[in-house]
Amino acid sequence: MITLHHLRVGRSIFTVWLLEELSVDYQLKVYHRNPETMRAPAELRDIHPLGKSPVIDDDGLVLSESAAITSYILEKFDADNKFSPKRSSLNEWATYQQWLAYPEGSVFAPLLLKMLTLRSGVEHPVMTPFSEAEIKLHFNHITKQLGDNDFILGDAFTGADFAITYMVSMAERLGVIGDYPTLVAYFERMKNRDAFKRAIEKAIE
Amino acid sequence: MITLHHLRVGRSIFTVWLLEELSVDYQLKVYHRNPETMRAPAELRDIHPLGKSPVIDDDGLVLSESAAITSYILEKFDADNKFSPKRSSLNEWATYQQWLAYPEGSVFAPLLLKMLTLRSGVEHPVMTPFSEAEIKLHFNHITKQLGDNDFILGDAFTGADFAITYMVSMAERLGVIGDYPTLVAYFERMKNRDAFKRAIEKAIE
Repeated sequence: MITLHHLRVGRSIFTVWLLEELSVDYQLKVYHRNPETMRAPAELRDIHPLGKSPVIDDDGLVLSESAAITSYILEKFDADNKFSPKRSSLNEWATYQQWLAYPEGSVFAPLLLKMLTLRSGVEHPVMTPFSEAEIKLHFNHITKQLGDNDFILGDAFTGADFAITYMVSMAERLGVIGDYPTLVAYFERMKNRDAFKRAIEKAIE
Repeated sequence: MITLHHLRVGRSIFTVWLLEELSVDYQLKVYHRNPETMRAPAELRDIHPLGKSPVIDDDGLVLSESAAITSYILEKFDADNKFSPKRSSLNEWATYQQWLAYPEGSVFAPLLLKMLTLRSGVEHPVMTPFSEAEIKLHFNHITKQLGDNDFILGDAFTGADFAITYMVSMAERLGVIGDYPTLVAYFERMKNRDAFKRAIEKAIE
């Protein structure tokens, strides 16, 4: 059975949601951040040397990286390709790969800069304007991609929606989502999914 | 035919290298950064709305994100799975996905912080120590994963080596590779591959 090592508060709630969407059996091991440093507890390093989360352990296969975990779980538990295009539809599959990699690969870094700036209360002459400009670029791009669709790849909910939702939730926490009504509405749609609600119920005390 | 939009100097040289490893036919369109701001030229936005690089255009399929481009090119041109595990070897395939996502998903952000700090000459009370600690964590992790092996996943060169090499090359440019002799040796091995040499020859005037 899959064990999900879940660090609160952080991106692993989106892996809980993924497991709930697929009705996979799993157990949850919950960890808490140091309230002063906000860093993960050292015991997470016993699971995976980076000491980060999410990490899953599936009968000895230990995996980190949200996008890789999504790919693995869909490969193993979504044989009907309900949540991702088939590889035989090569162009759609490639576009899905792009949107799966994009959140952590491009959107997260400027959000991290913003988070560290807010947390410290200290701006930086280069990093602060860089972060502001990149956040604008990416959230306008996501807004345009969503258009009037319900999901990031159109009418169908896919594996790419988990990490996009994480980025949107970060924007909310950092107080920058107000400029993007399309993203506010998207986040509401995702939060209203039954599997998302079950994830919140199970993973948050 | 694939057109690779290549911005100098940056990560797209590693996509040139990928295409050379696979002996794929492609054409290269080269762009240059603004020498003052180091940003990409606006014309890249005509190719892809984010205006970044690498972007490939394969008969109208426009793709960004290095990891997605790697997956697409291997899927299309590496039918024998020379450069990645077959999906039927599920655990190996999952571990490959993890190492494919990891460089841009986790290693790049602290390197970016370091780069912006060096470029500005201004440290930050939180971002600078965060970046230093994360760089150490990740390069120790990559060192340990490499061990005595030639490649990031052991004896076989795979699609995960392109982005790992990019991270190592960033470490060299930022002056932090000296602490990691295993990474220096790995970078040398990669640079000595014929396909890497061809990439440098073709892509750098």
